Amino acid sequence: MTAIKWHLGEEPGDALESRLRAVRQLTETLCNGLSDAEATVQSMPDASPAKWHLAHTSWFFETFVLRDRQAHFQLFDHRFRYLFNSYYEGEGERLGRASRGLLVRPTLDRVLSYRQRINAALLELLPRLDAEGRTLVELGCHHEEQHQELILMDLQHLIHESPLQEGIWAPVAPDKPAKVAPIQWIEGPQGPWEIGAGASEFAFDCEQPEHTTWLAGHALADRLVTNREWLNFMSEGGYRRADLWLSDGWSWVRSNRIDAPLYWKEIDDRWYQLTLRGWSLVNLEAPVCHVSYFEADAYARWSNARLPTEAEWEVAAQGKDASLGTFLEMPNPIATPVPDSGGFGLRQMFGDVWEWTSSAFLPYPGFEPKAGTVGEYNGKFMSGQFVLRGGSCATPRGHVRSTYRNFFYPHQRWMFSGVRLARNV
Amino acid sequence: MTAIKWHLGEEPGDALESRLRAVRQLTETLCNGLSDAEATVQSMPDASPAKWHLAHTSWFFETFVLRDRQAHFQLFDHRFRYLFNSYYEGEGERLGRASRGLLVRPTLDRVLSYRQRINAALLELLPRLDAEGRTLVELGCHHEEQHQELILMDLQHLIHESPLQEGIWAPVAPDKPAKVAPIQWIEGPQGPWEIGAGASEFAFDCEQPEHTTWLAGHALADRLVTNREWLNFMSEGGYRRADLWLSDGWSWVRSNRIDAPLYWKEIDDRWYQLTLRGWSLVNLEAPVCHVSYFEADAYARWSNARLPTEAEWEVAAQGKDASLGTFLEMPNPIATPVPDSGGFGLRQMFGDVWEWTSSAFLPYPGFEPKAGTVGEYNGKFMSGQFVLRGGSCATPRGHVRSTYRNFFYPHQRWMFSGVRLARNV
Amino acid sequence: MTAIKWHLGEEPGDALESRLRAVRQLTETLCNGLSDAEATVQSMPDASPAKWHLAHTSWFFETFVLRDRQAHFQLFDHRFRYLFNSYYEGEGERLGRASRGLLVRPTLDRVLSYRQRINAALLELLPRLDAEGRTLVELGCHHEEQHQELILMDLQHLIHESPLQEGIWAPVAPDKPAKVAPIQWIEGPQGPWEIGAGASEFAFDCEQPEHTTWLAGHALADRLVTNREWLNFMSEGGYRRADLWLSDGWSWVRSNRIDAPLYWKEIDDRWYQLTLRGWSLVNLEAPVCHVSYFEADAYARWSNARLPTEAEWEVAAQGKDASLGTFLEMPNPIATPVPDSGGFGLRQMFGDVWEWTSSAFLPYPGFEPKAGTVGEYNGKFMSGQFVLRGGSCATPRGHVRSTYRNFFYPHQRWMFSGVRLARNV
Amino acid sequence: MTAIKWHLGEEPGDALESRLRAVRQLTETLCNGLSDAEATVQSMPDASPAKWHLAHTSWFFETFVLRDRQAHFQLFDHRFRYLFNSYYEGEGERLGRASRGLLVRPTLDRVLSYRQRINAALLELLPRLDAEGRTLVELGCHHEEQHQELILMDLQHLIHESPLQEGIWAPVAPDKPAKVAPIQWIEGPQGPWEIGAGASEFAFDCEQPEHTTWLAGHALADRLVTNREWLNFMSEGGYRRADLWLSDGWSWVRSNRIDAPLYWKEIDDRWYQLTLRGWSLVNLEAPVCHVSYFEADAYARWSNARLPTEAEWEVAAQGKDASLGTFLEMPNPIATPVPDSGGFGLRQMFGDVWEWTSSAFLPYPGFEPKAGTVGEYNGKFMSGQFVLRGGSCATPRGHVRSTYRNFFYPHQRWMFSGVRLARNV
Repeated sequence: MTAIKWHLGEEPGDALESRLRAVRQLTETLCNGLSDAEATVQSMPDASPAKWHLAHTSWFFETFVLRDRQAHFQLFDHRFRYLFNSYYEGEGERLGRASRGLLVRPTLDRVLSYRQRINAALLELLPRLDAEGRTLVELGCHHEEQHQELILMDLQHLIHESPLQEGIWAPVAPDKPAKVAPIQWIEGPQGPWEIGAGASEFAFDCEQPEHTTWLAGHALADRLVTNREWLNFMSEGGYRRADLWLSDGWSWVRSNRIDAPLYWKEIDDRWYQLTLRGWSLVNLEAPVCHVSYFEADAYARWSNARLPTEAEWEVAAQGKDASLGTFLEMPNPIATPVPDSGGFGLRQMFGDVWEWTSSAFLPYPGFEPKAGTVGEYNGKFMSGQFVLRGGSCATPRGHVRSTYRNFFYPHQRWMFSGVRLARNV
Repeated sequence: MTAIKWHLGEEPGDALESRLRAVRQLTETLCNGLSDAEATVQSMPDASPAKWHLAHTSWFFETFVLRDRQAHFQLFDHRFRYLFNSYYEGEGERLGRASRGLLVRPTLDRVLSYRQRINAALLELLPRLDAEGRTLVELGCHHEEQHQELILMDLQHLIHESPLQEGIWAPVAPDKPAKVAPIQWIEGPQGPWEIGAGASEFAFDCEQPEHTTWLAGHALADRLVTNREWLNFMSEGGYRRADLWLSDGWSWVRSNRIDAPLYWKEIDDRWYQLTLRGWSLVNLEAPVCHVSYFEADAYARWSNARLPTEAEWEVAAQGKDASLGTFLEMPNPIATPVPDSGGFGLRQMFGDVWEWTSSAFLPYPGFEPKAGTVGEYNGKFMSGQFVLRGGSCATPRGHVRSTYRNFFYPHQRWMFSGVRLARNV
Repeated sequence: MTAIKWHLGEEPGDALESRLRAVRQLTETLCNGLSDAEATVQSMPDASPAKWHLAHTSWFFETFVLRDRQAHFQLFDHRFRYLFNSYYEGEGERLGRASRGLLVRPTLDRVLSYRQRINAALLELLPRLDAEGRTLVELGCHHEEQHQELILMDLQHLIHESPLQEGIWAPVAPDKPAKVAPIQWIEGPQGPWEIGAGASEFAFDCEQPEHTTWLAGHALADRLVTNREWLNFMSEGGYRRADLWLSDGWSWVRSNRIDAPLYWKEIDDRWYQLTLRGWSLVNLEAPVCHVSYFEADAYARWSNARLPTEAEWEVAAQGKDASLGTFLEMPNPIATPVPDSGGFGLRQMFGDVWEWTSSAFLPYPGFEPKAGTVGEYNGKFMSGQFVLRGGSCATPRGHVRSTYRNFFYPHQRWMFSGVRLARNV
Repeated sequence: MTAIKWHLGEEPGDALESRLRAVRQLTETLCNGLSDAEATVQSMPDASPAKWHLAHTSWFFETFVLRDRQAHFQLFDHRFRYLFNSYYEGEGERLGRASRGLLVRPTLDRVLSYRQRINAALLELLPRLDAEGRTLVELGCHHEEQHQELILMDLQHLIHESPLQEGIWAPVAPDKPAKVAPIQWIEGPQGPWEIGAGASEFAFDCEQPEHTTWLAGHALADRLVTNREWLNFMSEGGYRRADLWLSDGWSWVRSNRIDAPLYWKEIDDRWYQLTLRGWSLVNLEAPVCHVSYFEADAYARWSNARLPTEAEWEVAAQGKDASLGTFLEMPNPIATPVPDSGGFGLRQMFGDVWEWTSSAFLPYPGFEPKAGTVGEYNGKFMSGQFVLRGGSCATPRGHVRSTYRNFFYPHQRWMFSGVRLARNV
């Protein structure tokens, strides 16, 4: 593993240690109160059980940090190499993703013991790690934060697929938000512009390198599309008009009988939404969430607008404080996003919901995957997916930045995804 | 629900009560020590989670006994009607079989509470039940015994599909059985013969009515086919010779790459078998188990023999004590069948493994399904399946009788199924 | 190929020659006027193109008669061995059934040349054949007659699947039949009875041997179920009442949205039927045709009756002239069956439509497949299928007899299949 | 249909008429000699029968030119609207793509009559057409040229799937080409550059508008990758090394057991290729053909290179004569591409094989689909596909230009697709 170019983790040891402790703790906090069954059942091949996430994030540290750096290293359980490798071909054969729900053993207790062992070994090793090792610990923390969001996504999908559809957490009384004002269009710059991540801060490989792109004339909506607006789209036949949809999207709508965002249902002319806190009325002022690229694109066409490119989004986000916004909060994670109440200019850029862009997830000019197995991190997913930006209410605060690229297939929508419109000027 | 013709439950009230208590207890004993995850995960659409079996057997009593007979009857949970109805169309919509593994809720604890409530209500009602009600309680006990065997079948399948493949129960030291003697052929009678169940003892609808059949000249093997014999079949290319197989069987072998009984694997030229007690060497003297009809039929053809008809089997079993044999024993359920050690004449007729017959599962002359929803019990499965006879080491002792008809599709083999040969004389 | 026990073909050489000539000619007559495309396209995996049938019936004679008996034998085209073997494992690898529609080559003309070459070789060889060889020629004729019916079945399915749904032959003016009289029930004998084919006449292996069976008290309907009666079943919700159906049948109805016999459609409250002569109004007095076992069984249950067993049917048919009835006639093949106009007692036993029985297709006691590859003829299909009796309006006259056993899976209905009711007495 | 901005077809009437005549004739010439069966059978859902292409290209003119402009217009056959609409939702329901192989009717003869009728009507109408009408005729000619290439692609796939795998055309003696020289790298410009089609010449909607893009430093290979080079990739384990592949690509390789380009097979250590002229030895100096994006991308990674972006390709092609190169020639269409023999600088840019780019098929900045149903032409396919450039030996000469964007899914390879390498500088 040579030529690591990520951020070198130069903060004082105690800072990295604090971060490691906090990240590892949050994962377990999210799973607090889950029954063994809730932590084990898999609701679809795209989703993984919480128990698997708990173990896999530990396997990541064990494999990429401890194995080559710890004296007298021993695997906690040699079978875990097979069970908890996600997709790293360089680490050998592994359990198929669709079989993760068959992991009745190891038990949840044993997985928690695994976590403790890895934590202890990391904390013991940390003071003696070189820069490369520290960079990998930092990578492991960012990696685990991604799985924190996946845990919430996958749990929400599980309770929706489970016949009783009960929330995991207690319900909360809803806010009574003021009605959201009409969209204002904010023009962005034209011509050459620098985007992408440089070498001074941590960033994933796919955000790099910094490079020039050319922006055409454009404007972005100052806020996200709301549920109220989405209901207008629905009541005006948005899901029934072939002319609004991409060809693959229309096939998807028809073969899956899609007629609303995921997790919605209609009872007596009112729409309800299932969240981790159970069923509640759809909040009309909140950003629409759990929509696919196909839906976002159709909505934009219906609005005589389009989705932003990832470059347009990034340029608009440059210089904003990425730690502000509605992010995951514990012990009270809010899975129901609420709109930004005040201010002017571009709002809701970070947190709330992931924003679909019209850009395919492809390598930047000059992209180089990292050497070694860790290099499989992002590059090999660069076909068929679209970029989303900005993080969501299920993303840990501090995880995203303006250069951050998330990506999903255009039919997927179990992540916390929504829509910001753009248009040509 | 009129015209019930099953055995009328004339034993003293305390006898039926004792039976009810014992049956209900055994189901829970079988599930003792299962983790919540092990009781919830579903390994294939044909199999159900133990939690579902625990609840469904209670739903059966609640629906067919309590609902119409208990004063001030109230459903324990109205949603259970949907969740725990197995296949009774007359009871309305129900959870699809393939979705039973999504039942993270209700929890195992709540299902056990459901059982207690139903038990209490049944015991309270029992002294006041009329004959029809008592007959339905008896039916419910027989029904629950069937699910006891299903629990073991389904758990065994689950641990086999689970990546770690660990046993549920502690291993036991194997016997060192003597080598089984060669097959002796026992001739049966020819000409007209009475088979089927009369009205004097409990029997399922599909065993009725008693009727005449005509037997051609035949002989049955005095014992079951052993694993040693099956290994000969394998080593002589039994799974690779198309001429030995039914056409559908050969397609099944090829598309599923079948080359041994279910739950077997070969390591360094030795064959191992997974049971509820974990992996162990295949016991060469034990009856082969977990083979499909297609395999049983191919084996018989390879042996220049055939499978018995169900009439041939039943006539041979008439007059034998159906409670003798290797049946399910608690707290030590033996999932690995062992051969009958002594005696002569027909052995291993009851218990050990279910014996495939060459008879399709079809109605007897004069068959009448029962009135009402309970009438869906067996009749609607009379296409495409074959009859098995005699019970297995996973069947509760006392459950089967000489007229008992079990049935599975010809490709299925997760039940404890084996082979007895027959031939023309 | 030893121990052939079929009918030994003792008629004078010219009689066998005449039969061979007539059978071979009829196959080509049936295909007269087909375009190259109509003879080549495959409409479903169960059906084969006419071109394939034309060639396969020739391959049968080439392989089982000419190859081992003709001096200086040469294959017409060595590739045909792969292309036109249907299912004989003993003859090696072969084209998958679902790929028969990809046979753009050989052309129809070349297949017709193949037929001429085989015809010439057979006629040249015939005078010198021994009894075994003559028996195989006779088998080949019976085999080709089966494919004549398949050609009509498969063509009818093809025109139904083709978007324009035009008839192959010119329409004919319909009869105005008199209304069919109510069913009369004809009692059959009870007790032991001989069924099955002896050695004195040609019969397929699965019809043998003659053996005793035991008949319970029963009666058969004197005629077939009519379209008028079937429409009553439909209008009274027959396709929507789960309680009328076998479990597998109900799944089939729901997943395939079945609500009428195959080839029917409703326009403005009138039902039309597609035949090889195009669309026409359903003839209310004609026997219902193109129904599956599942439908036949549900109809019988709705009628408080049942389907006959194959033994009941055969005993009723013994002694009747199997050459009378509505069979395939050329140049005017009548694909729309009409009811038997006169007489009393059992009618419509031969021809008209194949009659579903409640008997699974299983070996008779003492059944022995023939030695050699020809022995694959019927025995290997003995799982999962049901027996049909009596022939149809698409069967060549003279092909069936009282012992004749046809067989299909319970969901299939592209053959000319209908219903005769039975009941217990 | 307003605001058509394509090339306005200002050439003299006779020029457009000549072009129309030539295009319509070439389609039929390509199908000359096909049997009815060869023109009707469909080999996979992605491919269509030649008969369908012959009719669909006529339906396009009938629907978009004649219907609204011809006095006393009458449809040739009202059923063709359903049969021969490809994917235009605005034109109503249509035959599913996977069912095009069931079109035994209309016959090939009737389809040719349809063509004659449409030709006559177009030629009669042409002198009186306004500019918009003329533009649509020109669009129809370009559209038909696309289907000419599809006819060749689909026929080649059909003969490969057909069991006999015989060529459609007679074989030709291969050239003995000189060994291709090593790749030279040609640097392209950096910085802002104009790409896309302006309004002065015909172009499809997706090529428009002309716009600025930013080029990073790069170089292109001066020629295409050859079969000889591809064999090196194969022999060095290219198809077995997971690290070379995109994740979706690796799944595709494994589940389809891909180990060579489409239409290749190995016999005795030599590789053969099926073309429309039958099997022949792979020409080592010819460009590799019939490879997917996944393969092209893996090959580039193995070569320490990458695929070009579509902007890099287009800038390199600007100013070159797009009518030079190895294009489809009649009566001798050359389906086996040969390398450009002489010269220096970038070669093989047009014709030969379509060149995969690393660019997803997405709208250009400012893209506007056309009004009306014709607007469905390209825009609705903008998800999940990649752009290919330059045309192929199966493309009609004159059809492509430097701005031309073709697009396919990354797993598809039945088109004439190959690889040009690029790298960063």
